[in-house]
Amino acid sequence: MLLKKGIPMGYIFGKIKYEILAVTVYTLAINVLYYQYGLKEISIPLAVPMVLGTVLSLLLAFRSNQAYDRWWEARNIWGAIVNDSRTLVRQLMSLLDGAEETEELAHFRQQFVKRQIAWNYALGQSLRRKDPLRGLDKLLSRRELNYLARFDNIPAGLLQMHSRDLKYALRHEWVNAYQQVELDRTLTRLCDAMGKCERIKNTVFPATYSLYTHFTVIFFILLLPFALIDSLGIVEVPLVAAISASFLLIEKMAVNLQDPFENKPTDTPMTSIARRVERDLLQMLEETGQVETVMAEEEEKYYVL
Amino acid sequence: MLLKKGIPMGYIFGKIKYEILAVTVYTLAINVLYYQYGLKEISIPLAVPMVLGTVLSLLLAFRSNQAYDRWWEARNIWGAIVNDSRTLVRQLMSLLDGAEETEELAHFRQQFVKRQIAWNYALGQSLRRKDPLRGLDKLLSRRELNYLARFDNIPAGLLQMHSRDLKYALRHEWVNAYQQVELDRTLTRLCDAMGKCERIKNTVFPATYSLYTHFTVIFFILLLPFALIDSLGIVEVPLVAAISASFLLIEKMAVNLQDPFENKPTDTPMTSIARRVERDLLQMLEETGQVETVMAEEEEKYYVL
Amino acid sequence: MLLKKGIPMGYIFGKIKYEILAVTVYTLAINVLYYQYGLKEISIPLAVPMVLGTVLSLLLAFRSNQAYDRWWEARNIWGAIVNDSRTLVRQLMSLLDGAEETEELAHFRQQFVKRQIAWNYALGQSLRRKDPLRGLDKLLSRRELNYLARFDNIPAGLLQMHSRDLKYALRHEWVNAYQQVELDRTLTRLCDAMGKCERIKNTVFPATYSLYTHFTVIFFILLLPFALIDSLGIVEVPLVAAISASFLLIEKMAVNLQDPFENKPTDTPMTSIARRVERDLLQMLEETGQVETVMAEEEEKYYVL
Amino acid sequence: MLLKKGIPMGYIFGKIKYEILAVTVYTLAINVLYYQYGLKEISIPLAVPMVLGTVLSLLLAFRSNQAYDRWWEARNIWGAIVNDSRTLVRQLMSLLDGAEETEELAHFRQQFVKRQIAWNYALGQSLRRKDPLRGLDKLLSRRELNYLARFDNIPAGLLQMHSRDLKYALRHEWVNAYQQVELDRTLTRLCDAMGKCERIKNTVFPATYSLYTHFTVIFFILLLPFALIDSLGIVEVPLVAAISASFLLIEKMAVNLQDPFENKPTDTPMTSIARRVERDLLQMLEETGQVETVMAEEEEKYYVL
Amino acid sequence: MLLKKGIPMGYIFGKIKYEILAVTVYTLAINVLYYQYGLKEISIPLAVPMVLGTVLSLLLAFRSNQAYDRWWEARNIWGAIVNDSRTLVRQLMSLLDGAEETEELAHFRQQFVKRQIAWNYALGQSLRRKDPLRGLDKLLSRRELNYLARFDNIPAGLLQMHSRDLKYALRHEWVNAYQQVELDRTLTRLCDAMGKCERIKNTVFPATYSLYTHFTVIFFILLLPFALIDSLGIVEVPLVAAISASFLLIEKMAVNLQDPFENKPTDTPMTSIARRVERDLLQMLEETGQVETVMAEEEEKYYVL
Repeated sequence: MLLKKGIPMGYIFGKIKYEILAVTVYTLAINVLYYQYGLKEISIPLAVPMVLGTVLSLLLAFRSNQAYDRWWEARNIWGAIVNDSRTLVRQLMSLLDGAEETEELAHFRQQFVKRQIAWNYALGQSLRRKDPLRGLDKLLSRRELNYLARFDNIPAGLLQMHSRDLKYALRHEWVNAYQQVELDRTLTRLCDAMGKCERIKNTVFPATYSLYTHFTVIFFILLLPFALIDSLGIVEVPLVAAISASFLLIEKMAVNLQDPFENKPTDTPMTSIARRVERDLLQMLEETGQVETVMAEEEEKYYVL
Repeated sequence: MLLKKGIPMGYIFGKIKYEILAVTVYTLAINVLYYQYGLKEISIPLAVPMVLGTVLSLLLAFRSNQAYDRWWEARNIWGAIVNDSRTLVRQLMSLLDGAEETEELAHFRQQFVKRQIAWNYALGQSLRRKDPLRGLDKLLSRRELNYLARFDNIPAGLLQMHSRDLKYALRHEWVNAYQQVELDRTLTRLCDAMGKCERIKNTVFPATYSLYTHFTVIFFILLLPFALIDSLGIVEVPLVAAISASFLLIEKMAVNLQDPFENKPTDTPMTSIARRVERDLLQMLEETGQVETVMAEEEEKYYVL
Repeated sequence: MLLKKGIPMGYIFGKIKYEILAVTVYTLAINVLYYQYGLKEISIPLAVPMVLGTVLSLLLAFRSNQAYDRWWEARNIWGAIVNDSRTLVRQLMSLLDGAEETEELAHFRQQFVKRQIAWNYALGQSLRRKDPLRGLDKLLSRRELNYLARFDNIPAGLLQMHSRDLKYALRHEWVNAYQQVELDRTLTRLCDAMGKCERIKNTVFPATYSLYTHFTVIFFILLLPFALIDSLGIVEVPLVAAISASFLLIEKMAVNLQDPFENKPTDTPMTSIARRVERDLLQMLEETGQVETVMAEEEEKYYVL
Repeated sequence: MLLKKGIPMGYIFGKIKYEILAVTVYTLAINVLYYQYGLKEISIPLAVPMVLGTVLSLLLAFRSNQAYDRWWEARNIWGAIVNDSRTLVRQLMSLLDGAEETEELAHFRQQFVKRQIAWNYALGQSLRRKDPLRGLDKLLSRRELNYLARFDNIPAGLLQMHSRDLKYALRHEWVNAYQQVELDRTLTRLCDAMGKCERIKNTVFPATYSLYTHFTVIFFILLLPFALIDSLGIVEVPLVAAISASFLLIEKMAVNLQDPFENKPTDTPMTSIARRVERDLLQMLEETGQVETVMAEEEEKYYVL
Repeated sequence: MLLKKGIPMGYIFGKIKYEILAVTVYTLAINVLYYQYGLKEISIPLAVPMVLGTVLSLLLAFRSNQAYDRWWEARNIWGAIVNDSRTLVRQLMSLLDGAEETEELAHFRQQFVKRQIAWNYALGQSLRRKDPLRGLDKLLSRRELNYLARFDNIPAGLLQMHSRDLKYALRHEWVNAYQQVELDRTLTRLCDAMGKCERIKNTVFPATYSLYTHFTVIFFILLLPFALIDSLGIVEVPLVAAISASFLLIEKMAVNLQDPFENKPTDTPMTSIARRVERDLLQMLEETGQVETVMAEEEEKYYVL
């Protein structure tokens, strides 16, 4: 079988069932006009929708490409977030080093790692416009939660706290200036990833383009029955429905892919990525005991796109 | 519904209303010639505009792609500006550190952050060829404004001041040489972003290409009525108008996207990005009291593209 | 001859033999209906599949492009792994330097290099969902294998050990803080490469898109015999089979390329790359004596794609 | 109006006037054959040039894309040169610092900045295969000009001098080793930009590809009159001329874009970019008095492409 | 004239002369069947090859794109090698600095530069699967050649020697740890470039894709005479030959471009690039006396592609 499991047929065709119904009724109506009322002159040459079909194909190809690029970029950014979270913890383990390995330093590290785990969850939540603080009380201290209250942008607040901790570590000589800057660069990369997610979230795909494509699709579908009625008669009804379904599904898919952070079943799987990162980071911290995840129950309603 | 709100229909079709009118009149005229004066031989085979239509589709696809890339690059650059502004302030908070946290250092930091906020506004304004200093007197000191008078390129002048301040901080041992260079790198990235915006602004999309595409669109539209008149007769008038509208709208959209820093309603939303950065940076500086934004009233006349 | 050897014809056509058989039977059945039962009216104009063919070409072109990009990115990542493995060993040879070149330092270096070789094998194995520890007992010490037991993600565990060794080297003053960070950056690049492989492995190509393309291919093939029967008659059987084969093969190829880490004969040759890296690294370590490779026997069943 | 001013119509159509003339004569000749000598059988079906037209469209689309990419890369490189020139001067102002701000240091900085201005002019000139030293005597000292005499590649020689000056600055303790390396990195980026320009200049667009495209265009144009003569008769003459013009103009445009450093009116505006950089750098150096530009008179004969 | 000189016509068409001959004979045979034996029913509608032509155009466009990308990436990599070679020598001149400028240091530098020149030649030769050591005895000492004997991969061995020399320089305090790392980064970039060349060399373009494209081209050519015979008769022979030539030439070109390091006349000009680098590096070293190049005689048999 060609396809991975995951999306029930019903889900896919459910999205366009009203459109297909409308197309069917419309084509039937034209057949009635043609056969009942003998309006033979309404037929148009097939070449007209063919010209339009070529343009439309290119419009849809362009649109699919850009939508796919947005979706793939979103996945790349979250891939980079996974990598940089691991790198951050690896650096905390190997660059941070006190004169002796004290209790305080161990606690500092643990808190830092948990805050990074919290950052992943918070970023995912806030991109989906849900409460970014949900479940974070298991990971953050009371003092940290208070500090965050001041920020509109919770993930930005968490990075700010990371940064303050690095300054604290420099003052305690757990890192030297050089190592501090190196850790700061990892924070910069995380900050960049956050900004890129926000950019994709906040930049609407050019509405004019979507609109023109949509109009051209509709216009093409409206012309199609007139072009096929002469040679096919009533047989054209399923054919027009099927061809319309092709074009409408491609358009829908582009619409789905182009906004990868909406709260939809075919979303970027941010929560499950955050959960995987949580497990990895805690193993790196050698805290395998308490791997009870923050958001275990949630993902069921998302399909694997 | 497929599309985000934001652009009224009237705005979209308003742009091509004269062209559509002209096409309608032109097609009607050909119908008059054909039916009134019996010039039946003016019809041409439909295959001729079909060949041209294929070429045209590829021309428009190419043009849309390049225009979209310019527009998306502009958004990427402004995304990077957001990220680097945040990084700059984060570094000012965590890398800068005096022997003791004096009043002077706090003031230094505050002034630096405000200057960065000013830089965002000034860059947006100067890309739109508007007064880059508008509203900046709320953010910059008298001395800074005087210093800027010397520069044609105001944002470049602000970066120069940033750089002088870093030298001052090094001399006062608020940063070490290593940290100074790290901050200087952030300035380099901001300088690169500025240069990239200027490059997009100053590089016209190859005029010859626009011209050829435009001529081919017009040529295609001029041929279309001759090709359809035989089989459709007077019915061709709305059809020709609709097909022309498709092609003209796609061309217009490319023209809109390709220049993302013109002072148009479908522009890159630089002022609103600058305002968001302003809010974030002031929160990072822990100055939540005075968040009265510099340019609050302006954006209304921009649509979300 | 145009093509490099490597894939037997039987392998290629074997993949679609049942589909071709089905298409042949189906076309024959339509011929029987047409000639035996005289259902002449089932024929449809050729222009209908032509419109669909244009759309289909663009769908397949888009899909081939994205699949190729995934495959090429996978090769790029493994190319970067080769480069960074070499760079890591070069840096171990030139940056690491004790007050005197002791036995212990030499042993340290040797162990580090072998662990890097193990990392390459383990990453390849775990991407193919096979036992990542297979054969690694020749390269890793008992103590290292015990430490790894704790990790779900074996390659991540190996990088963690690299990182701990760097801390150890810093404490013994075999490297200074600056050199440690430089080596850590090489680890960061390896960590990024690992994460990118996981991203490609775990991100399914948009299932909706595959599905729509597959349906459109099938729909196109189902229409084809109706369109050709009028003009070709029984001759259409081989023609329909051949055209179907073209489209089906292109689709299959995209399916093959899009998942470059599945355990298939046309896979990314990770084991043979790891073996090449092993040879190079041991030569750089000047241990040419013991180049008996870890996984020599395995690759036979992979073709060169 | 859709297009920015800049290129007179005559310039554009002047390029293909002989080709259009030849096409017209050729089509007329075929009409004479057809009508005078009654060679009716020379007509061919329109579908033949249509197949060829599809291939040709894709060839031209591919070619336009690659040519545009070369042109845009050239603009990107020069954009990076602007940015790195500014960064270099900013770093000279803020990183370079003596125990006291002596006359000698000020002179050193000034000479460095002027040399960088000279580098921009020299690179532009040498890419156009013109005398790279023209006008540089206003910017460089006699000693510097003598040193350059030894180099075939003048811009490389200027970078070498930059580098020697940095060594000199390190010895005088105007910079520390860390700052020297940071400045050296800026030189590395300038060196990369120079190398990229040379790569574009020296890498011919695959000649075989240009040749095949050109032959296919000509072959297409030669077939066209035979295909249209049956349905259009003498009316085909302007139509064939216009369609040929479309294809020929697109090909010409690709040829123009693909070599962005030839000495043509539609060139990359290197001299005007260099002049803008000159003004910016002198303002940063606070030498606004003497902004009399090196090459003021030259650009008139270039159009804005 | 549109094209740069360099490739004789005979060379281009020589590549497909047997194919064109076969196509001509085949088309003639079909004409004999049609006219001599009156098998009028073998003709098929032109729309059949038109559908196939569209698919084929997209297959060839995809293939040309990927092949061009490989070729252009190869050129980019060699461009980067030129840049990094220059950067390496610039850094050797400006970063390396003893307490006094001794004879030994000068010799060290000279040897390093010559080894870099050797690296360029050796990489080019080994990518072409020729003897990588040819001519290097003019550049390398006896001791260096002995050391290289141990390596399968000669360029990797040369980089290893570079790296050992840097360690030696650090021990003699000609560079500090910071400068050593900076030079090591340049080596890392060279190592990356080498690995990228090997990746392109060792990654075959997906054989299945080449095969499908080739089969579709042949299938298309085999159908063409049947489709044109009805309307054109014997005139179709040159037409089929010419159309076949278009498609076959495009395919050949992709085959040529996709493997940029084979030992063919249209290869990447690695030897001439290496020679140019040699001249530049020796001028930077101020050794203009002895510019007698290592491989002067060789390039004649390469055309400029």
